[in-house]
Amino acid sequence: MKSFRDPVHNLIVFQNEDQIVVDLVNTREVQRLRRIRQLGLGNIAYPGAEHSRFVHSLGVAHLMRRFLDDLREGADEQTNRLQRDLQNYRVLALASALLHDIGHGPFSHALESVTKIRHERFTSAILRSHMTEVHQVLESFEEGLSARVASVIERTFEPSRALVKLLSSQLDLDRVDYLLRDALMTGAGYGTFDVEWLLHAMRIGEVDGEPEVGLDLKKGQSIAEDYIMCRYYMYLHVYFHRTTRAAEVMVEKLLQRAAEVRAFLPGFDGLNALLQGQIDPNDSTSLTLYLQLDDGVLWTAMHFWSRHEDVILRDFSQRLLHRKIFRGIEVESEEEAQNVRSKQCKQAIARGMDPEYYVIDDQAASHAYSDPYLAPPISEQVKEPAKVRSAEASESIYLFDEEGRPHELSEASFLVYAVRNRSVYARRVLFPEEWA
Amino acid sequence: MKSFRDPVHNLIVFQNEDQIVVDLVNTREVQRLRRIRQLGLGNIAYPGAEHSRFVHSLGVAHLMRRFLDDLREGADEQTNRLQRDLQNYRVLALASALLHDIGHGPFSHALESVTKIRHERFTSAILRSHMTEVHQVLESFEEGLSARVASVIERTFEPSRALVKLLSSQLDLDRVDYLLRDALMTGAGYGTFDVEWLLHAMRIGEVDGEPEVGLDLKKGQSIAEDYIMCRYYMYLHVYFHRTTRAAEVMVEKLLQRAAEVRAFLPGFDGLNALLQGQIDPNDSTSLTLYLQLDDGVLWTAMHFWSRHEDVILRDFSQRLLHRKIFRGIEVESEEEAQNVRSKQCKQAIARGMDPEYYVIDDQAASHAYSDPYLAPPISEQVKEPAKVRSAEASESIYLFDEEGRPHELSEASFLVYAVRNRSVYARRVLFPEEWA
Amino acid sequence: MKSFRDPVHNLIVFQNEDQIVVDLVNTREVQRLRRIRQLGLGNIAYPGAEHSRFVHSLGVAHLMRRFLDDLREGADEQTNRLQRDLQNYRVLALASALLHDIGHGPFSHALESVTKIRHERFTSAILRSHMTEVHQVLESFEEGLSARVASVIERTFEPSRALVKLLSSQLDLDRVDYLLRDALMTGAGYGTFDVEWLLHAMRIGEVDGEPEVGLDLKKGQSIAEDYIMCRYYMYLHVYFHRTTRAAEVMVEKLLQRAAEVRAFLPGFDGLNALLQGQIDPNDSTSLTLYLQLDDGVLWTAMHFWSRHEDVILRDFSQRLLHRKIFRGIEVESEEEAQNVRSKQCKQAIARGMDPEYYVIDDQAASHAYSDPYLAPPISEQVKEPAKVRSAEASESIYLFDEEGRPHELSEASFLVYAVRNRSVYARRVLFPEEWA
Amino acid sequence: MKSFRDPVHNLIVFQNEDQIVVDLVNTREVQRLRRIRQLGLGNIAYPGAEHSRFVHSLGVAHLMRRFLDDLREGADEQTNRLQRDLQNYRVLALASALLHDIGHGPFSHALESVTKIRHERFTSAILRSHMTEVHQVLESFEEGLSARVASVIERTFEPSRALVKLLSSQLDLDRVDYLLRDALMTGAGYGTFDVEWLLHAMRIGEVDGEPEVGLDLKKGQSIAEDYIMCRYYMYLHVYFHRTTRAAEVMVEKLLQRAAEVRAFLPGFDGLNALLQGQIDPNDSTSLTLYLQLDDGVLWTAMHFWSRHEDVILRDFSQRLLHRKIFRGIEVESEEEAQNVRSKQCKQAIARGMDPEYYVIDDQAASHAYSDPYLAPPISEQVKEPAKVRSAEASESIYLFDEEGRPHELSEASFLVYAVRNRSVYARRVLFPEEWA
Repeated sequence: MKSFRDPVHNLIVFQNEDQIVVDLVNTREVQRLRRIRQLGLGNIAYPGAEHSRFVHSLGVAHLMRRFLDDLREGADEQTNRLQRDLQNYRVLALASALLHDIGHGPFSHALESVTKIRHERFTSAILRSHMTEVHQVLESFEEGLSARVASVIERTFEPSRALVKLLSSQLDLDRVDYLLRDALMTGAGYGTFDVEWLLHAMRIGEVDGEPEVGLDLKKGQSIAEDYIMCRYYMYLHVYFHRTTRAAEVMVEKLLQRAAEVRAFLPGFDGLNALLQGQIDPNDSTSLTLYLQLDDGVLWTAMHFWSRHEDVILRDFSQRLLHRKIFRGIEVESEEEAQNVRSKQCKQAIARGMDPEYYVIDDQAASHAYSDPYLAPPISEQVKEPAKVRSAEASESIYLFDEEGRPHELSEASFLVYAVRNRSVYARRVLFPEEWA
Repeated sequence: MKSFRDPVHNLIVFQNEDQIVVDLVNTREVQRLRRIRQLGLGNIAYPGAEHSRFVHSLGVAHLMRRFLDDLREGADEQTNRLQRDLQNYRVLALASALLHDIGHGPFSHALESVTKIRHERFTSAILRSHMTEVHQVLESFEEGLSARVASVIERTFEPSRALVKLLSSQLDLDRVDYLLRDALMTGAGYGTFDVEWLLHAMRIGEVDGEPEVGLDLKKGQSIAEDYIMCRYYMYLHVYFHRTTRAAEVMVEKLLQRAAEVRAFLPGFDGLNALLQGQIDPNDSTSLTLYLQLDDGVLWTAMHFWSRHEDVILRDFSQRLLHRKIFRGIEVESEEEAQNVRSKQCKQAIARGMDPEYYVIDDQAASHAYSDPYLAPPISEQVKEPAKVRSAEASESIYLFDEEGRPHELSEASFLVYAVRNRSVYARRVLFPEEWA
Repeated sequence: MKSFRDPVHNLIVFQNEDQIVVDLVNTREVQRLRRIRQLGLGNIAYPGAEHSRFVHSLGVAHLMRRFLDDLREGADEQTNRLQRDLQNYRVLALASALLHDIGHGPFSHALESVTKIRHERFTSAILRSHMTEVHQVLESFEEGLSARVASVIERTFEPSRALVKLLSSQLDLDRVDYLLRDALMTGAGYGTFDVEWLLHAMRIGEVDGEPEVGLDLKKGQSIAEDYIMCRYYMYLHVYFHRTTRAAEVMVEKLLQRAAEVRAFLPGFDGLNALLQGQIDPNDSTSLTLYLQLDDGVLWTAMHFWSRHEDVILRDFSQRLLHRKIFRGIEVESEEEAQNVRSKQCKQAIARGMDPEYYVIDDQAASHAYSDPYLAPPISEQVKEPAKVRSAEASESIYLFDEEGRPHELSEASFLVYAVRNRSVYARRVLFPEEWA
Repeated sequence: MKSFRDPVHNLIVFQNEDQIVVDLVNTREVQRLRRIRQLGLGNIAYPGAEHSRFVHSLGVAHLMRRFLDDLREGADEQTNRLQRDLQNYRVLALASALLHDIGHGPFSHALESVTKIRHERFTSAILRSHMTEVHQVLESFEEGLSARVASVIERTFEPSRALVKLLSSQLDLDRVDYLLRDALMTGAGYGTFDVEWLLHAMRIGEVDGEPEVGLDLKKGQSIAEDYIMCRYYMYLHVYFHRTTRAAEVMVEKLLQRAAEVRAFLPGFDGLNALLQGQIDPNDSTSLTLYLQLDDGVLWTAMHFWSRHEDVILRDFSQRLLHRKIFRGIEVESEEEAQNVRSKQCKQAIARGMDPEYYVIDDQAASHAYSDPYLAPPISEQVKEPAKVRSAEASESIYLFDEEGRPHELSEASFLVYAVRNRSVYARRVLFPEEWA
């Protein structure tokens, strides 16, 4: 038995039967998540939000354990069958929960925008590569387990669609933990919801012949609404916070500049490979290099670059280290954006500064109800919003009535209906604070 | 006005009249504290404990603001006079509260044991050096303010002994914040106490003609006891946690080895200077180098060293990165320690490993009531416990009765009396987990 | 100074300058509120909800104290003027906050429906009557204070409209306390909101030349939405809970029957007068009788009536004492109601029971945004919804922008807009559980 | 399945397998506990403490359910055997937990001192009497269950000593719930402890061949100490609060006077029988009368008596209704008590008041570690402290080490050792506030 204390869930316990979690926690790939903050630069706006992806991953495994232990005989036979099915996948479920974020790099948004590789591809590669400790631990438990975990996280695992949905759907345990944890750690009061009641109301049901994670209709509607609202507020106030967004975009520009001026650093092999576009998840050498990256490495690179000869690289590094974050002016239309932009570009030129780096368009968009993942590669999203959305278009939250019939949440709830077609959208033009 | 959200205090607000806090927060030296974790390697044992010295410093400034705003007319004239005196030092009080930890480096214990320089000396130097932004902001508010802040933190400020005590005494606002914060973030339930009631009961009184921060006798005895107990539990379970202590000692050994084998790293000027023993708080170049150090720099150095040719340096780096922390065997006497040590030394030699690095004596000692600071240079303490203790021997918590007479807590409280002569003492022999 | 501990606000302190609160707390009329539960029969559904109107009243006085103490210099001169004005009314404000519910009787809804007298009329009478201790304490502080307090609570106090709004408007301190307290005590998680932030965002502004309590536009919109949602959920799940509503209607029927069969009880002078329709707030003898009523008196009457010769009175008393509450069938239209009713009436007749008592129509309606008071005399409301609504039609929550311009919440917020036209409406037909 | 919300435990759920709890909750004897406050007159000092014995009983049943569900395979075979044994008694355990306080009357201390009958005798009688619903429900589940429940509560149930200890020992679930609940509802911050960790550390062990409820030595020592401290503070600040104690003694005197002047009230059959000393738990008529008593009946009697011709009865009733509670002067010795008493007796006589009623000795004593029950008939205790203590002398808290060996807490813990020989003792002389 292994127990952890946690500011969110208080006591996290894994009994001997769940030894796989403990063994996976002790791998170097999971330990690496200790050095990557869940909210990247979120602590720039909310100083308490310093929690790591490690403690979040532990939280998701804990919620999965609770969910599996709390499944009880339900009213209808179909639910019972689905829930019994799920029990057969306990080891797989716990491992997938713990490892769902294993491929994240530091400052995920910025990194993805530079590498053009989504962190999910690294997750798959880490699980499947024979070289990783995670892979070895999984295989030592069950042959083929690493591929099954990868398949669950990739959402292609057919034997248990319910398990897939438990880890990635509108109401998955990943989101439940991160919303709660981010709300608690930021201190942003409106982001909390009653997780006890949510777990109490959650159940497995069936929609169009496919298992879905949903909620009991009677017990679950209000908590579903509250959960959607919390998500909405977290996007509005935390994930899309003006200063945090600006800092993230600045890191993006910083890495872009470092690549441009080939500001490689001796010994920073992972970072150098990244700047040269030589990171390939499917190549084991390059995967090893990727796994050297963490928040500390990037911050240290900024220390080094803050003394670099390139004035832009130097300036961006210093601004990030000393929190001289660009100011964001909210704009409501393309026209307004162009106006602000052109005005600020003139100012840049007058000051002898490169507008490409010093006047930045930032667009962040999500939906409270049908949001894509927390870490959307914004640029793609903005260019092809339809595509990004369609990827999750089928995703809904279902409320199951006493006969097991599903009711889609936004049809059952006028509140969610109102929120549904509302995007949380922030469009800003960013430029140095001192120009204002 | 500037407001922050915080998981501990919820809402932290500084009105325009307290602009100094906002200006100081924006200096690079204060921003640097974002990159240094309050508990160093505490998150090794308590994964949620990832909070920075920055958010703690903000918390102490907030408590100071509350304390000053809540001072009310008391029953006796003496108290009122003392409290009015204090009000004259509002700017100084807030600045000192925010800056009290400004000199901390990463992994403070380990660093201090290698440099033989206590972090307090860097605090003084940063405040007094004309080169720091902190110094410049302070002087721009009031000439001589930087020296006065330094003097308050150094405990030599004579014009208001009450202010000195508010920031360093048995019941100072620094401890109130860190105990609460560490308890909340670790999730260690027994470390919390009712801070509202504590603040409600706190008052300024006079002992032997000198102002002291204490508590109202009637209201304050139970909360004082509870606070002492919390401190006791935090030492027992968090600060002296077996795994955290072992990791700290391993960092100490790592740095010692890096110095020994002269494992300097290109570009890591601060770290290299430190390993060469060339850090001097009073030299401005060297101060600048010191300020480049943060947790990320040390972790990045470990990444580098994990590929170093020296096998010990390489091994320690890998162990720390992948959390292969030494096991600690508790011993109760010097004799028992020698037995365990000699047994393990034989094992080291049999395995061809250097016992000086792989078999380590660790002694940690504190007192719930008269503890020295959180970051005791343990080796000194163990060698000269009397001296360390005497430095704070005069420090007591006083309860003031209705006539303003002080009663020393351990005399008033049989509980604290019982705790008083108890040290929280941990003595262990550490060696690699896999030997066990 | 007097301090109270409280499960909602933790520490409630009134300094010597606010002695009026302490003196009023010690009057018999305020002490009587200890014996009246805030939620009447709410603990039938939520067993923890046993808090009294006394502790709620204390909470409102505490919030008023905090609000007055936290008023700070704002950005615009108009706000500052309005806030300075308010400071002149500190004694009046605190007294009105503490006394706003002084006229409540036990099981307020049921009582009002029997007496046809709203509790507000008793509040006014108690304040103005020379015989009450509350009146005497008020007058001893300031001549005419009792009339001014009455006027504030009656919403007719012209010298400070802001004060009136602070105690009765869509966002008044009364509601802030009861929503929070009811949410905490019921354990209904979705009813809580971040009261610290709400208070932080509250400010006085001006709408059409009249002072209004509102929120800062930037800081306040999300918390305003959250507050509205909490109110919505509290109505849905707590105030209109099926079992609680059924129990309330049963008490109404019980009192109606007791009046009908003239089931007066020796010594229960207050209750007997009430059953005879002889309670008149403006008559001092009858006011004294009214003040003898509390929850305990009504429960004791039920003990007595549970042995009464009238079979209906006896049965209702036993059902209430032993929690054999009527079942409520939700109906959605008048037609459906008639169907259920006529079916159940037949059953009543077949069992030889009086349908007038055993088959009951229950309609409960409120709005999350423009709700009338917590204790709506439902029957009236249902008959003349327009009138009830119009009484508060002018009531809106305003968000004030940086120039002090008001923005009505449902215009600024699509969420509140969606909720606005939604009533929380429950229509049920009630009948004995054992018939189902 | 039946779920309750609760301010202490959040969600309380009983699955279908635990239907007995739901059926027992619906009996009139359990419902009666809704009308009896857990802390009697505790809300006189702590206005939030209005919770009933009903919600506490539910909480104890919930803790029992959790304890039984969380029992896991332990390290040693003995523990496993003991824990398996316990599982055979699930129905009995839950029923006993819910019903352990079923015999309490209103204002228990005062009532017991007047009737000279401890509430435990009523508990036994209610369980065993064929007339009660509780008895009938129990027997309908299992023949002889009512006697077994009674035996568990009476501590004579031999087949499972572990079960007996779970409900009455130094660390039983009854105390765990009431300490937590009382701490939360009073708002007295120092009374809370980490119940999650406590439950996590609890286990069944064996001492001298008899099963005992204890704690794991490694995990449990600090939480055991914290629990003992909380108990200590709750006695000090809540249970023995000066004003609450004075109010309790005043009710005692009130009932004594009512008996003396034969102030029987028409219809108050239960109360009249009590005043005439005609309540006998073993007589079924008299048991029925006893079950009519609740807080409301006693408060209503005070309303009546507040207009009684006997001046003392009238005065005490009015004082209690309007909270004119006697002042208590703390005395430290018999001699000091006599001095104060004789001085105040003179004052009584001078004012023409009866010293027997107006000058009262109050002694309250308990121990943090070996305290007798919450409701000690103080007078007896003070007379024969040895006897009262010996009844629980055998009671200790045990910490079990890895080999299953028990270590008595006060031997393992210097803190508890310090508290052990400390009684929480309050001795006061009480008299009318206005004499001071």
